[in-house]
Parts: sequence; structure tokens; C-alpha cells
Amino acid sequence: MDVATVVGLLCGFGLIGTAIFLGGSPESFLNPPSVLIVIGGTFAVTTACFSLGEMGRTVRVIGKTLFHTPRDPSQVLQIAELARKRGVLALQNLLGSVQNEPFLHKGLQMVVDGTPGEEVESIMRRDLQATIQRHSKSTSVLRKMGEFSPAMGLIGTLIGLVQMLGNLDDPTTIGPSMAVALLTTFYGAVMANMFFLPLASKLERNSQEEALINNLYVMGAASIGNRENPRRLEMLLNSILPPANRVQYFD
Amino acid sequence: MDVATVVGLLCGFGLIGTAIFLGGSPESFLNPPSVLIVIGGTFAVTTACFSLGEMGRTVRVIGKTLFHTPRDPSQVLQIAELARKRGVLALQNLLGSVQNEPFLHKGLQMVVDGTPGEEVESIMRRDLQATIQRHSKSTSVLRKMGEFSPAMGLIGTLIGLVQMLGNLDDPTTIGPSMAVALLTTFYGAVMANMFFLPLASKLERNSQEEALINNLYVMGAASIGNRENPRRLEMLLNSILPPANRVQYFD
Amino acid sequence: MDVATVVGLLCGFGLIGTAIFLGGSPESFLNPPSVLIVIGGTFAVTTACFSLGEMGRTVRVIGKTLFHTPRDPSQVLQIAELARKRGVLALQNLLGSVQNEPFLHKGLQMVVDGTPGEEVESIMRRDLQATIQRHSKSTSVLRKMGEFSPAMGLIGTLIGLVQMLGNLDDPTTIGPSMAVALLTTFYGAVMANMFFLPLASKLERNSQEEALINNLYVMGAASIGNRENPRRLEMLLNSILPPANRVQYFD
Amino acid sequence: MDVATVVGLLCGFGLIGTAIFLGGSPESFLNPPSVLIVIGGTFAVTTACFSLGEMGRTVRVIGKTLFHTPRDPSQVLQIAELARKRGVLALQNLLGSVQNEPFLHKGLQMVVDGTPGEEVESIMRRDLQATIQRHSKSTSVLRKMGEFSPAMGLIGTLIGLVQMLGNLDDPTTIGPSMAVALLTTFYGAVMANMFFLPLASKLERNSQEEALINNLYVMGAASIGNRENPRRLEMLLNSILPPANRVQYFD
Amino acid sequence: MDVATVVGLLCGFGLIGTAIFLGGSPESFLNPPSVLIVIGGTFAVTTACFSLGEMGRTVRVIGKTLFHTPRDPSQVLQIAELARKRGVLALQNLLGSVQNEPFLHKGLQMVVDGTPGEEVESIMRRDLQATIQRHSKSTSVLRKMGEFSPAMGLIGTLIGLVQMLGNLDDPTTIGPSMAVALLTTFYGAVMANMFFLPLASKLERNSQEEALINNLYVMGAASIGNRENPRRLEMLLNSILPPANRVQYFD
Repeated sequence: MDVATVVGLLCGFGLIGTAIFLGGSPESFLNPPSVLIVIGGTFAVTTACFSLGEMGRTVRVIGKTLFHTPRDPSQVLQIAELARKRGVLALQNLLGSVQNEPFLHKGLQMVVDGTPGEEVESIMRRDLQATIQRHSKSTSVLRKMGEFSPAMGLIGTLIGLVQMLGNLDDPTTIGPSMAVALLTTFYGAVMANMFFLPLASKLERNSQEEALINNLYVMGAASIGNRENPRRLEMLLNSILPPANRVQYFD
Repeated sequence: MDVATVVGLLCGFGLIGTAIFLGGSPESFLNPPSVLIVIGGTFAVTTACFSLGEMGRTVRVIGKTLFHTPRDPSQVLQIAELARKRGVLALQNLLGSVQNEPFLHKGLQMVVDGTPGEEVESIMRRDLQATIQRHSKSTSVLRKMGEFSPAMGLIGTLIGLVQMLGNLDDPTTIGPSMAVALLTTFYGAVMANMFFLPLASKLERNSQEEALINNLYVMGAASIGNRENPRRLEMLLNSILPPANRVQYFD
Repeated sequence: MDVATVVGLLCGFGLIGTAIFLGGSPESFLNPPSVLIVIGGTFAVTTACFSLGEMGRTVRVIGKTLFHTPRDPSQVLQIAELARKRGVLALQNLLGSVQNEPFLHKGLQMVVDGTPGEEVESIMRRDLQATIQRHSKSTSVLRKMGEFSPAMGLIGTLIGLVQMLGNLDDPTTIGPSMAVALLTTFYGAVMANMFFLPLASKLERNSQEEALINNLYVMGAASIGNRENPRRLEMLLNSILPPANRVQYFD
Repeated sequence: MDVATVVGLLCGFGLIGTAIFLGGSPESFLNPPSVLIVIGGTFAVTTACFSLGEMGRTVRVIGKTLFHTPRDPSQVLQIAELARKRGVLALQNLLGSVQNEPFLHKGLQMVVDGTPGEEVESIMRRDLQATIQRHSKSTSVLRKMGEFSPAMGLIGTLIGLVQMLGNLDDPTTIGPSMAVALLTTFYGAVMANMFFLPLASKLERNSQEEALINNLYVMGAASIGNRENPRRLEMLLNSILPPANRVQYFD
Repeated sequence: MDVATVVGLLCGFGLIGTAIFLGGSPESFLNPPSVLIVIGGTFAVTTACFSLGEMGRTVRVIGKTLFHTPRDPSQVLQIAELARKRGVLALQNLLGSVQNEPFLHKGLQMVVDGTPGEEVESIMRRDLQATIQRHSKSTSVLRKMGEFSPAMGLIGTLIGLVQMLGNLDDPTTIGPSMAVALLTTFYGAVMANMFFLPLASKLERNSQEEALINNLYVMGAASIGNRENPRRLEMLLNSILPPANRVQYFD
């Protein structure tokens, strides 16, 4: 689970929730029609900008972002060392232990099945490209939602204000009506700044990190498939990894 | 029909409409002069930025966007296979079945008429360029409308406020006057965020998709005109299509 | 006259004017000091960003934009055909008929005077560059005005509010004072969105179109001066013109 | 003196001042604490973004911008002609007459002192680079001030509003307190839009113009130092000057 | 200590503080729940955009920015001269005097230890890259905080307004409730404009300056390690330093 994102968002919502409860009458912050206008409206308008398939993929990608854990690419070196010592077929027993890395697992499976190194690399690289494109589309969907949700909040508030101003006969209802009108602006600001925009930023950051690591797996699987010396692979990986994350498996 | 766009926009307007009806007195949301200022003003000012021809084309392009259906480019492979087996003249009978793809139809017609492959490709490519340019101009028109409609809404509200403040003699009229003044801001926000901007985004997205598919048709028609092997065409198409949409007609 | 721009702007102002008149007491929308702050202030501050010469040129360029008519570059082919048939000197009689195209007129005059083709081309191209630069500077001036006029409107409103709030003794004057204060915001929004920004967009669009057509005239005059075959000129022109506007003078 | 900038800014402030005086009680627009928050705060925060040296240089550069006069680079041709006719040493008597052009003066002094042309060019060009960098840093300082001054105005207004709302006991003081609170927003808008941003735009424009002319002086001094024909220098200058400003010293 | 930043920020906060104290009842500006919503919420949401490690590094980098002192790179020339005169081993005694420059110290230590010049350069350059990347990530964190803190301020104000409007029974509490509601907007504006954004600008500026000087140290240590003539090093340094900061150690 991505601690920073899950705890960060929970803390944010916790602070807002505490402020609402401390002020008394938290029920005045829940107005189903307002929720419908802001969240429903944002989804409807954003869907109109994209296709149904792109919207569905975004929901799945958000789920994967929340349960994202930073990955340690150094195991690919252990696997390469093992493959050199005991032969490629010995990897068969290892496949179970890398099932938490489906991309690496798929690559090693192809190597064990005897697919030549170049073909493993080309198939994995094509797959990697598709993932990057899919994530970038999902980032666009989240950014658009972050743009539209304050706009829907404003529209909801304007509806509330026009309705309130239309019948000012009873001044005692002005306050509560105005409070309800402001709720949509509140929902819009919360959705954009505490959900859509942070998730879009995180998605972009993770996508870069994931592309880097999957790129290492591509190089690793191709290197194993080509029966290259694992020391050459270590040099190759370190030329791509940022200094802080360099691996040093062989002294 | 483009389900995502049509249903998305209808849902958005439905939500707004429901909120208005639930609040009672929906007639207070209809103010013909306000509609005229925002919609008329936005059209007038945007027309001043472009030419009459560009405005007319944009309306037609919006119509085509709403009735856009995702297209399956794989039929071009079936046609190429048929042309290889029974000769180019056999395509004559097929022309009726591709009338829903006028760009492909036009290309195949030229092939059947005996136009050489290179000339078919050059004429179709020129046509494709013109379409891309026309759509990009229409996207600009919609974006400008999305910029000008909130501005016209603000101008209308300022007119209403100045008129209301000018005669505050009767305080009971303040509320309704203010409500009418806010209506233009409401119209402007709705037009921009629930019509012009989503359509501009969608237009841009469809234009990219359409350019990709028409590009495939150009390659297909040219390949048929040149009597090339359809397997070579399949390879060519797959080098351009995104991985998820790759076609596999020949095993 | 550029129908889209002139009619567009007139319609926009007409709609605003109608809304003001329908509301009664249109005189409350005219406040000379407010006009002075917004229009005078915008001019003053924008002048400070540029030089007096650049401001003057912008006014002249606006005039030319409003009376801009789309031009048909195909006449240059007729002239080239005539020059080939009856000799360059025969163009002398034609010069009067192209006086509405001063750039082409100037080029043909040089050709008739016996200036060699290369020199005609180099002089005309230098002139064309100067025009493009002049228009781009004028677009910048209009964009800056579109930025500064809402700011001056805000400043005027703040002055009005501070004055009003300073003496709230007589509550009956609050409304009218507030109305006057809002007028500068109104003027600023109108000037920016219904004059400066649309004109800047139009200027940019026309400048591109004009550069294209004047570029054709440069090529035409040079071709005539060099006594080339007009068919070669037609091919040259069509390689530059967008597909929709291609000319076809020779079958 | 730069007429456009000085007169432009004076006119702008004159219009604002007139509006304030016509409204009566101009003293209500002067509130020393508000001035301190906006102007002092903007300087403090902008200084935190840069270094003390960069702030000092910006003040000096503003002074030079206000007293900037457009320069005529054609005198460098007269000097080159003189140098060719009477020898480089004759320039000694001319040095006094170009003291208003310190950059040219410094270059000619080096030529008279016998410094070789290439070295004159390299030293002057290094000096020119330093000037361009210094001005670009000053433009950044002014732009940041234009961003921070409305922000400081908002902060000041919020302080005033919180103080006013905290003790609403005496309703007669609401108006004046509110007026004082709005003053910081007013100061911030005036400083940004009528001082910092126009000066930043002007600085950028003048820096481009100055770089062009100083570049001509570099070429002129180097050409004189190398004893080249002044006609070659004229050709060189005209290849760089915009068409409208081309010099024609030799027929 | 970085005088401009520390004094600039202190002056800014001093001015705000003075304005608050002069207005009386400064305690009304301290509202712990509001502080929690704005500062806590900003940290929580920004953390969700990055990782815990990136947040921690940013705090450390801010500390280093506040205590940053401009550095004089000319000492590297003295050290190079000494190394040429008395041999590289004599640098051992100097290492204590450059402990305030850990990057240079690390480089010289490697030279004294006999590491070849090329390897010293490659290790130092890799380290320099890591520092630049770390600072750029921290600048992004500060910019995001500068974006989110006004948003959290708005959200806090909306919570306060909804709570206040919900129970308008007692009009005497409207003022103080409204004041408390505005406090979060005030905190958000102060945090963004007087802390996060200036620090982000400063960090970016210092990072460029530091990269320049550390680049000089890389060149210096490599030059000493290679036993090159220090005059060559001076030339090398001056080709990189901006004109104003050029060093002149030899004649």
C-alpha cells in the first residue's frame, strides 16, 4: 500500500472531518442533491470528454496507485546470477517467488519457455509502452476532473443562490439556504484539491518510477535470455538508476 | 452515436435540471434576455475572432462529433484479401457496404476506376490534411467560446447589478433582481463547462483517433491499388496501431 | 469590410445595449470619470509598456483589420498569362485594376519598370517581413490592453468602494454609489472581452492569411519578372495554398 | 527620457489621482500602515526570493529605463568613414562627442589605444552578455513584485476584515474600517498593474533594443579596429537592423 | 546565513505582525483549528502527491537554504597553486580549512588518497547530478505546497461559513464567526506567498548557483589530481564564471 498517499489523503480528510464535528451539527454538511451535482456532474462532463473505456481504466489505475508499493529491482540481479550458475531452466522454480511482479514474471516465463532474448525484449517493451500510454490517459482524466469539479461546485452554488434570492419572503431561511448553496462549492474544492489533483500528481510520479523499473526488468530478462554475464547487467542497470538507488550485488 | 459524449452531456444537464426542479419555481431559471446576452454575445464575439465560414464549419463538426462511432479499421484487411483473390474489379460490389466510411469509399472508388496507387495515396493524404486542419480550427472556435461565455456571463451580471443598485427604493425587489442578475453568470458557467469545453476536448481526441484510422485507410487503398500482398499491409497497419488495437486477420 | 468582425462586434454591443435599455434608465450606465479611468488608464499603462510609435501603428492596424476583405490570389495567374502572351509592358494598363492590392501593385510596377526578377523578389520579401513584424507587435499591444483593462476596472471599483464606505452616513446613497463603483469593472470587462481580445485574435488570424497571400504575390511578381511559364507558377502556388483554396486557372 | 513610459505612468497615476480628488476626502486614501504592508511586504518577500545585490541592481536598472532615449546607431558609420579618411588616431578628438554612448566610447577608446580588432570585439561582446543577463534578472525581480503585490494587498485586506468583524459592536465604524481594509487591495492592484508589470514589460523591450544597438557598436568598433572598408560595415549593419531602421550613409 | 532570505521573510512577518498588534486584540488572529486545517491539510495533501522520503528531504533542504552563504570559488586556485609548488601530499594539511565546503573537501581527500584525476571527476560529477535532482524535487514539493495552501484556506473558510450560516439565530455572533472563517483564507495566503513560494524561488536560484560552483570544484579537483598547470585551471574557470565573478589569481 502506498503509505504516503493513503495516509496523506486520510489525514487530510480527517482534519476536515474534525473541523466539521468540532463546529457542531455535522449533518448540515451532508446534502445529497449537492453531492449529486458536484460528483455526478463532474463524472458526467468528464465522461463526455473521453470514452467509457478510458473512464473505466482510470478507476482501475487509481486502485492500483493506492496499493502501489515501492519496488526493489535488485532481485533481477540475483535471478541473473542464479540463471548463470544453474542454467535458465532452474528459473522455473523461481517463477512463483516473483508473482508479485507480473511484468518480470511474464518476461521470465518467456525466457524459460525458450523465447530468444531479442523477442522477449521486443514483446516486453511493447507492453511497457502500452502501460505508459494508459497511465498518461488516466492522468489526463484525473486532471480534467480536478478542473471540472470546482466548476460544478460553482454551478451548484449559483443554482442555490438564484433559488434563495427568488423567495426572500422569510428572512429566517436565508442562512440555511445560503449554507446549502455554499456546500457545492465546498464539495468541489474538496474533491479537486484533496482527491483528483493529488492523485493525478501521484499517478504521474509513479508512472515515471514504474517505467524506470519495468525498463530494468526488460533489460534483465533480455540479458538472461541472451545468457550474458550478470556483471554486465549490473553495469547496465547502474547506468540507468539514479545514484541513490544504485545496486551493488557483485563487490 | 458517441455514447460517452451524448449520455455524459445529457446526464450533466439532467442533474442540473433535477436540482432546479427540486428547488421549486423552475421558471425563475429561464430569463430570455439573459440567455440572449450570454449565448448571443458569446457567438457574436467569437464570430468577430474568426470568419463566417469557420463558424459554420464548427457547427457541422459538432454535429459529426455527437454522432461519431468508434470505427473498426480491420475491414480494410478483408477487402485487401478479397482484392488479391478475385481482382480489383470485384471490389465494385463491395463499395456499397463501405458507404458508412466515405473516406475509404472514395479511396476504393478511385482504385476500382483504375487510378494508380501512388495517385490514390497522394489525393487521399491531401484530403486527410484538410480534415485535420478543419477540425483543429473548430477546436479553437470551441475553446474561444469556452473562454468568452463566462466573460459574457460576468458582463450580464454587472449590468443586472448596476440596474438593481440604481433603484433600491423598494427592498422587496432586491432578491428577485439579484437572482436575475446571477442568471447570466450561471448560464455562462454552464455553457463553458458543460458544453463548449467538453466538446472541444472531445473534438481534439476524436480528431487524433480519426486521423489514425484514415491514415490506415490511405495505406490500405494505396496497398490495394499497388496490388501488394495483404500480409505486408497487416504488418504495416500493426506498426502504426496502438498495441491494444492491433489487428490479426492472417494467423 | 470584414463582415464577421464588424457584424460580430456590432451584434455584441447591440445585445449589451438592448439589455441596458430594457432595464430602464440607460443614463446610469454612462459615467464619464469611470470611462476615463478604464479607457484612459488602459491606454496610459499600455503606452508605458511600449513606445509612442508602436501605439500609433496599432491604431492604424486596427482600422485596416476592420476593413479587411478576404482576397482572391488567383488574379495573379491571369496577369502572368497576359504577361506571357503580350509581353511585360502590356501590364502597364493592368496596374490600375490592382490598385486595391497595393503590395501586388508595387511588385508589378517594379516589373514594368524593368527591375530584374530576383531584385523584385528580395525587395518584396523584405517588405513582407516588416509587415508581419509590425502586425505581431500590434497583436501584443492589443493583448496587453486586454490584460490591463479589467485591472483598471478593478482599481476604479476599489476607489469607488473606499469612497462609498468612507461616508455611509446616508444609507439611501449606498445603492447608487455602489452602482457607479461597479461601472468601472463593467467597462473593463466589456473593453477586454468585446473589443481588445477579439481584435487581437482576429489580427493574428488575418496576419497569417495576409502573409500567405502576399507570399503568393511575391512568387507571382518574381515569376513574371523572370518571364517564366505561368503553368510553373500555378504549380508553385498550389504547393503553398491549403487544399480548399487551390486555384485551377489552366485546365 | 523615455517619453512613453514616463508620460504613460504619470497619466495613469494622474487619472487615478483625479478620480480620488473628485470623490472628496482624498485623505481617506492614505493609510500609512496599509502602504507599509503592501510596499514593504512586497519588497521583503521579493528580496527573500533573490539576493540583496540583485535587488539593488534592479532599482538602478529602473532608473536607467525611465531615462532611456531611443538611440541612433548611424553615427558609428560617420565615425568609421572618418577613421578611414584620417586614420584611427583622429578618433581621439571624437571620443568626447560619444560620451553619451558609454559602450561605444569604451570600444573606441580601446581602438585608439591600439587594441587589436578581435580583442576589442571579444571584450565588448563579453560586456554585452553581462548587460543582457543583468537586465533579464531585473525583469524577473519586477515580475515577481507584480505577482506578490496583489497577494500582499489581499493579506492586508484579510487582516483588516478579521479585525473589523472581531468587534462589530459599533455599526457606525463598519464602513470606515472596511474602507481601510480595502485600501491594501487597492494599493496592491495599483502597484502591480501601474508600476511593476508595465516596467517589467518595458525593461524586456528596451533590453532587446539595446542588445541590438550595442551589437552594432561591437561590429562597428571591431570593423574600425580592423581598418575595414566602411561600406562593408554598412552592409553588415543593414543585415541586422529591422527594415524600417536601415541606415543609408553611403548612397 | 542567507541574509536576503532570512531578513526578507522576518521583515515580511514583522510587518504583518505589527499590523495585527496595532489593530488590537492580536489573540483573535490565533485559532488552533484553523492553523491545523491549513498547515496540516497542506502537508497531508502534498505528502499524498509525493513519498515520505521526498517530504523529509525537502525539510532538510529548506534548512540548508536558510543557512546558505554565497561562496567564493577562488580558493580552489590557491589550493591548485599550492599543490603545484609543494606536491599533492601537502594538501593533507589544508583539508581542515575546507571543511566548510564538504563537496570540495571530499574531492581533495580523494586526490590526496591518490585517486586518479578522471575517477575523481566522474565520482564528483555523479554526486553533483544527485544534488541537482534532489533540489529540483524539493522545489516541486514547495511549489505544490504554495498551490495547496490557499486551496486549504478556501476549504476552511467554506466550512466556517456553512457552520455560521447554519445557525444565524444570534446575530451578535455573526461577526466573530465570520472572522474565524476568514482566518483560514488568511493563513493560506500568508503560507503560500510569504513562505512556500519565496522559498521555492530561492531554492531554484541557489540550486543554479551551487551547481555552478560545485562544477568549478569538480574541475579544480580533477585538474589538481591530473597535476595540470594552475594557469590552465584559471582559464577554464573563467570560461564558465559570469563576467562579474571572474577570478584573477595569477598576474
